Amino acid sequence: MENNITLYSLDGTPNCIKVTLALEELNLKYATQTVDLRKNEQKNPWFLEINPNGRIPAVKDGDLRIFESGAILLYLADKYDTNHKISYPHGTNEYYEMLSWVMFQMGGVGPMQGQANHFRLAAKVRSDYAIDRYMQETKRLYSVLESRLETHDWLAGTRYTIADIASFAWVRNAELIELDLQAFPNVKKWVEKIEGREAAKRGVSLPPDVKSAQERRDMFAAMRSRIDGLGNMDKL
Amino acid sequence: MENNITLYSLDGTPNCIKVTLALEELNLKYATQTVDLRKNEQKNPWFLEINPNGRIPAVKDGDLRIFESGAILLYLADKYDTNHKISYPHGTNEYYEMLSWVMFQMGGVGPMQGQANHFRLAAKVRSDYAIDRYMQETKRLYSVLESRLETHDWLAGTRYTIADIASFAWVRNAELIELDLQAFPNVKKWVEKIEGREAAKRGVSLPPDVKSAQERRDMFAAMRSRIDGLGNMDKL
Repeated sequence: MENNITLYSLDGTPNCIKVTLALEELNLKYATQTVDLRKNEQKNPWFLEINPNGRIPAVKDGDLRIFESGAILLYLADKYDTNHKISYPHGTNEYYEMLSWVMFQMGGVGPMQGQANHFRLAAKVRSDYAIDRYMQETKRLYSVLESRLETHDWLAGTRYTIADIASFAWVRNAELIELDLQAFPNVKKWVEKIEGREAAKRGVSLPPDVKSAQERRDMFAAMRSRIDGLGNMDKL
Repeated sequence: MENNITLYSLDGTPNCIKVTLALEELNLKYATQTVDLRKNEQKNPWFLEINPNGRIPAVKDGDLRIFESGAILLYLADKYDTNHKISYPHGTNEYYEMLSWVMFQMGGVGPMQGQANHFRLAAKVRSDYAIDRYMQETKRLYSVLESRLETHDWLAGTRYTIADIASFAWVRNAELIELDLQAFPNVKKWVEKIEGREAAKRGVSLPPDVKSAQERRDMFAAMRSRIDGLGNMDKL
């Protein structure tokens, strides 16, 4: 389908990978533009015009601008997933189940695992209380995924959707905080199933990605060393 | 419009107030059922059938179940706001602007102000680092709202929408963490404008609410004293 999509992103970060996973599943052509956190480009006026929150990812598609990864996923599904390959038709019960799980990730898995990342990997002052708090909450959220996936193949309805994409983008990085998926066998199976999808392989490697957990750890360490100021780490 | 809505909620909490504000603007009839955190009812099987995440709010409407406040707002707008009183038509550019701001609240204002609440009011171990982190991030998010509201009456497009409702529900509690809205004059004006709406007055007082900042503080203190375990405070 005709489009004029530009994705403003940073390589390999969970919220950006959500978008590339969806774009690849939908076989959409798109341009990417790196927003260089080192140069604080996300706070430049040209980028704030696209996302007033100064965060990645954001998307332009013709004269439409859209920010927040969850909003971008819903937009791509609405506009380009006309065959409902990775979504359900707007207005159906399954659509609202999918929407609920997208929000579960946006309000839960993302922010909480993000805080676990921060306090384990980036905080300038160590807080065992905070580390424990966010590790426990991340595990609790994973246990919610586990319960669902014990009896269902996918989070919403009976097919792979943007709801799976949203949580997968974070759960695949569980090793970064040494959260062992052995305790969540159905989540682990679900991660591996998604990783096996051709579009997912392209989605996580566009732009070229690092593959192993150790490489991911190294990447995060390198990013941390160049991230300046509070909060920039939060949505990686 | 005919409906069979039951809202599962707890009086006066920001995420539940989002839903009552929208319901009241749309003049919808609805039943409410309190989910008693003291009795850990949010973890009972009957409630997990409605929201597998065991959190409030959740909604049933006939055979549809929907969880996460942001998903509920979008559902109510889709299904019942046929005159587009508090939303834009699905598929329009303004719809996606509204959706972006809803997500901004779900992934940003809610979780971050929630963490500020936790570390200021409920944490069992004091962490000045964490308090500073979440106060700064909450203020940064408010400054994003302030920038938008300097030049626009509302967050998305030109009218009051569910995007305003979502952030308002949290920003009205800024005093709880002694975050002074004087530093955000346009946000303050926007809060007062919303508080003046008849539906908003009903929305925050159904179920009967406490009105003043001091009363709200007392209410939160009372809630804290009966909240048990990590994380229950997070989404209040």
